[in-house]
Amino acid sequence: MKPTEVRAFAPGSLSNLGSGFDVLGLAIQGPGDTVVARLAGEPGVRIARIEGDGGALPHEAERNTAGIAALATLRRAGMESVGVELEVHKGLPLGSGLGSSAASAAAAAYAVNLLLGAPLRKNELVEPCIEAEAAVSGRHADNVAPALLGGLILVRSLEPLHLIRLPVPEGMRVVVVTPAFELPTKQARAVLPATVPLQTMVRNSANLATLVVACFSGDLGLFSSGVADEVVTPARAALIPGCDAVLAAARAAGALASSISGAGPSLFALCHSPRSAEAIAAAMVAAFREAGGLDARAVLSPADCPGVRAL
Amino acid sequence: MKPTEVRAFAPGSLSNLGSGFDVLGLAIQGPGDTVVARLAGEPGVRIARIEGDGGALPHEAERNTAGIAALATLRRAGMESVGVELEVHKGLPLGSGLGSSAASAAAAAYAVNLLLGAPLRKNELVEPCIEAEAAVSGRHADNVAPALLGGLILVRSLEPLHLIRLPVPEGMRVVVVTPAFELPTKQARAVLPATVPLQTMVRNSANLATLVVACFSGDLGLFSSGVADEVVTPARAALIPGCDAVLAAARAAGALASSISGAGPSLFALCHSPRSAEAIAAAMVAAFREAGGLDARAVLSPADCPGVRAL
Repeated sequence: MKPTEVRAFAPGSLSNLGSGFDVLGLAIQGPGDTVVARLAGEPGVRIARIEGDGGALPHEAERNTAGIAALATLRRAGMESVGVELEVHKGLPLGSGLGSSAASAAAAAYAVNLLLGAPLRKNELVEPCIEAEAAVSGRHADNVAPALLGGLILVRSLEPLHLIRLPVPEGMRVVVVTPAFELPTKQARAVLPATVPLQTMVRNSANLATLVVACFSGDLGLFSSGVADEVVTPARAALIPGCDAVLAAARAAGALASSISGAGPSLFALCHSPRSAEAIAAAMVAAFREAGGLDARAVLSPADCPGVRAL
Repeated sequence: MKPTEVRAFAPGSLSNLGSGFDVLGLAIQGPGDTVVARLAGEPGVRIARIEGDGGALPHEAERNTAGIAALATLRRAGMESVGVELEVHKGLPLGSGLGSSAASAAAAAYAVNLLLGAPLRKNELVEPCIEAEAAVSGRHADNVAPALLGGLILVRSLEPLHLIRLPVPEGMRVVVVTPAFELPTKQARAVLPATVPLQTMVRNSANLATLVVACFSGDLGLFSSGVADEVVTPARAALIPGCDAVLAAARAAGALASSISGAGPSLFALCHSPRSAEAIAAAMVAAFREAGGLDARAVLSPADCPGVRAL
């Protein structure tokens, strides 16, 4: 028997990881978005309620990532005659660099698919979620892929869609610190360089290659060194108050690497142990206050976390 | 007792492998350079003879990659008072994209080090050989590293020097076809774009990341797909008569991937079996004649080949 109501949760995610701009994404533990999907009489998707967004998100299904992903899932399943009502509970702040729009899309697509009796495999929900992302922050899968599939995902290409799961070095811990400061993805995309010097491309791609080697050899130090990025991180650091000081504070407190999470303003750090993660988180929060004049909240997470699931 | 004469052989190498411009190099079997080093009375390095170069290479030690590598090896070992005489037997054609200058450097450095009683480890010969490369074709290690160390090497960075050995997919075979046409590395470097569009960088680095994944998963098809390159290969293809036709002929004959070896004009193809390699080699040689009006010679090689060794 098909359920008449499904509640799904999708986690936040770190995308880019420095050298992996637009191609790497990592699911994190803790904050995420919850979507409740219910069968409704009228065909199509209606958003009944959004909570936790401070009234910022549109309620029209066609303009909301949860709504777009739900519609695209119905279409992909060939079940557009079904009517669905959604409730969206935002646990992720908007414009934070934690994959907020992707988490709403992933939770909605997953909930709707279960509501339909699961005609689609989880992998097949990636395209509907990319469609939703494209409407709000550009066509990329580095947040929707980990939000759906969990773990660390290499987005090899979008057309055709080719995703590769990477193992993560054992014991890797992630600290993500989010300041009370919204940075719209569009603004963070606008500062990106249109072109990159060839030698810079060579160094950046060698860093990404090194990070991938480290995934397989399980070398967290090597992984961390591969995060280094000369292209996107320097351009975006200027948009985030206190960014350089917070990244330096993370290193000084023992982080093996630190960089910008997605489009920012959240910043992340990598380390070996939960204890080290606590010290790093405290140092980053303090640095955001001192150097950026911003309150910030920290999330501590393992690196190998599950993606979307039913609650 | 130290020897008074050492004879060393270093193999040719495929560099770049498409998406790995300046960072990937693979040693091949078959053609290579041999250097004989002898103790001599006068301090310093003297080149007594060069064979197989058609008289093209300079005999001054300071202007010849074998000589420069020998001098740098003496310096690195702190034994500049020793006198060395070199004989260079070129088995690799010049300007062929097979790492000819790197092979001479690697054979010379290795022979001289043995002549000195092996004060340096093989890894420590990379820097002297990079010095030699820099004098003739720019500062890069993607040929000297495999010529010395064998196998497939990721040149993560030059300063500090960081080399990473990659496993190669089992059963991978390489075909390299060299036309009777010299393409000076300087000319091949001159056509490179100064800058690369950001989205092109993203796609190229995703290809390189995919190739690295395939090294560890042992997936030759995935490895081959990672060879795809939009940056360097299209720019250089125009310099090689018949290039596109030869690469297409390789694919039509069953190659999983085909691209330019190093700076060209040699072209390579990847495949599964020795038998398939023979058919591909024949098709590439025929296409060079038809589309490029050039005679060409083919080398068939496994992918996991040793580097420099004493004879």
